[in-house]
Amino acid sequence: MQATMLYGPRDIRFEDRPDPQILKPTDAIVRIAAACVCGSDLWPYRGIQTITEPMPMGHEYCGVVEEVGSEVRHVKPGQFVIGSFFASDNACPVCQHGYQSSCQQAEFVGGAQAPLLRVPLADGTLVATPGIPSGELIPSLLTASDVLGTGWFAAVAANVQRGVTAVVVGDGAVGLLGVLSAKQMGAERIIAMSRHPSRQKLALEFGATDIVTERGEDGVARIMEMTNGLGADSVLECVGTQESMMQAIHCARQGGYVGYVGVPHGVELSGEELFFEHVHLHGGPAPVRQFLPKLIDLVWQGKINPGKVFDLTLPLDQVAEGYRAMDERRAIKTLLIP
Amino acid sequence: MQATMLYGPRDIRFEDRPDPQILKPTDAIVRIAAACVCGSDLWPYRGIQTITEPMPMGHEYCGVVEEVGSEVRHVKPGQFVIGSFFASDNACPVCQHGYQSSCQQAEFVGGAQAPLLRVPLADGTLVATPGIPSGELIPSLLTASDVLGTGWFAAVAANVQRGVTAVVVGDGAVGLLGVLSAKQMGAERIIAMSRHPSRQKLALEFGATDIVTERGEDGVARIMEMTNGLGADSVLECVGTQESMMQAIHCARQGGYVGYVGVPHGVELSGEELFFEHVHLHGGPAPVRQFLPKLIDLVWQGKINPGKVFDLTLPLDQVAEGYRAMDERRAIKTLLIP
Repeated sequence: MQATMLYGPRDIRFEDRPDPQILKPTDAIVRIAAACVCGSDLWPYRGIQTITEPMPMGHEYCGVVEEVGSEVRHVKPGQFVIGSFFASDNACPVCQHGYQSSCQQAEFVGGAQAPLLRVPLADGTLVATPGIPSGELIPSLLTASDVLGTGWFAAVAANVQRGVTAVVVGDGAVGLLGVLSAKQMGAERIIAMSRHPSRQKLALEFGATDIVTERGEDGVARIMEMTNGLGADSVLECVGTQESMMQAIHCARQGGYVGYVGVPHGVELSGEELFFEHVHLHGGPAPVRQFLPKLIDLVWQGKINPGKVFDLTLPLDQVAEGYRAMDERRAIKTLLIP
Repeated sequence: MQATMLYGPRDIRFEDRPDPQILKPTDAIVRIAAACVCGSDLWPYRGIQTITEPMPMGHEYCGVVEEVGSEVRHVKPGQFVIGSFFASDNACPVCQHGYQSSCQQAEFVGGAQAPLLRVPLADGTLVATPGIPSGELIPSLLTASDVLGTGWFAAVAANVQRGVTAVVVGDGAVGLLGVLSAKQMGAERIIAMSRHPSRQKLALEFGATDIVTERGEDGVARIMEMTNGLGADSVLECVGTQESMMQAIHCARQGGYVGYVGVPHGVELSGEELFFEHVHLHGGPAPVRQFLPKLIDLVWQGKINPGKVFDLTLPLDQVAEGYRAMDERRAIKTLLIP
């Protein structure tokens, strides 16, 4: 097959690679229906996260099961499935507590920007849709694999409840789907912090009630003004920089909740500051597997349309252009069709 | 009157001071029945927290209302009352969310190691007991003012629920009352981390099921062994140093809760580490006012006896010895009788 590899900063190649094989009896091979480029793929693409050898890229996937290992019991060839970027057994105590992305057997699933993908721990990782989806549902189903699941977890970690005021820091695809998630969970007011017109528009479509264009402490000052000096009940941090994290913490009210899902890069938090801010802090790699049945159901029933975050669709062999467009912020998120 | 002042490191003086007066119409003057020395008083006593001028000491108090300002409606002279170390109006939005220690009008109550104390915002701050307590209840009622309320908040922030495994980091009075609080909230297993025999004994009396004497990463390794490699559901951090905070975070399971109430001194947290630990983090100055009615009731009914943390009782004029005994860890907590 031909698949996507990163060789170094901004050096994406679509090249010949061996077809994936069943390596363990719990594996499955999935024929990818659609893949995409993740905001977190841009960290190594930009060289901020260094790599030591060529890396197979892509960790968001959905498609039809091609083959399963001898110990796979529930997943069947021919099923349309979606899985998380962390394979999990969905059975260990960590999974039972709902933290499948930290499963005691967790394994990162890489190499999804390709026609075929090996998924470990298939029974614990993959969730089948009720049937073979129509083509128009596929982008939305694909988002459940990571970007929607991650935005959803940001809202869960930020304790979004009916009637709360939520703030979303970050207008990438995760932030935008954080808006959608907060809306689904009943937030009354959803303030999206964004300075990009196309992203503001999508935030409003997904349920944002207000847009704040200021950033950093100016942004915090606007949120304080809008909440009578109190701050927000729930803040979704969807970036992962020092500035965005402090912006999120300072936007929360005393006793409010910050859910952070942007992979932190060089973020340092002062214990004393957190103490006197009185915030709740929770985050980490989203346990997408926990949410997949719910998210698939919402998409399947047409209640949400998270696939709108894809504003660029390319054939898989043009993946390098997909990275460039996101790097230059010409695209929110690139959909890749094998 | 004669009252307690700190002039500099280890320089406690009991000296003539003017009697406190009603300064605002919402103030009350309380005649102190018993006061005490707090673990947090040791930070300035030891010079770790610097002071720029002589400081009236003491912020834990209970006693009989002597006089009230013209706008005080509910608190009456002659009532026996307990208040928090932060005065609060108990009415603003922050208070309504249960964070009275961050009240929009919050004011620190200092100078309680004295026969008389001015308490601001009396109606919002003070809670009266059902009647005048017998002398033997007074130490336990006094703990509700801070050390019990703070241990209780640690358990609330650590999400202690029926059946959980809780770990308590710190065997000072707050940690010990964190054990008592976790027991009240139904924790099934309570592991106290302590290497001092007298404190271990009290921890066991308060409901600890296990004692771990190791500290730091050795302590974490013991907790992991005892929890089948999973970690604890709830961890109460009751110290406030970098080591104790990391010990607490590493003792928690993925998705577990760390409640921290030790005032952090020089604590820095790595965003990336918190992210992959997947813990919930919450803490701050305990909103004692929220818990006072419940805690007074538990003491009044004889269901808890938190006053046992006082293992040294001195007349107020020997307050300097009370500080020395705690500084040298000869006493867990000193009770002072005016």
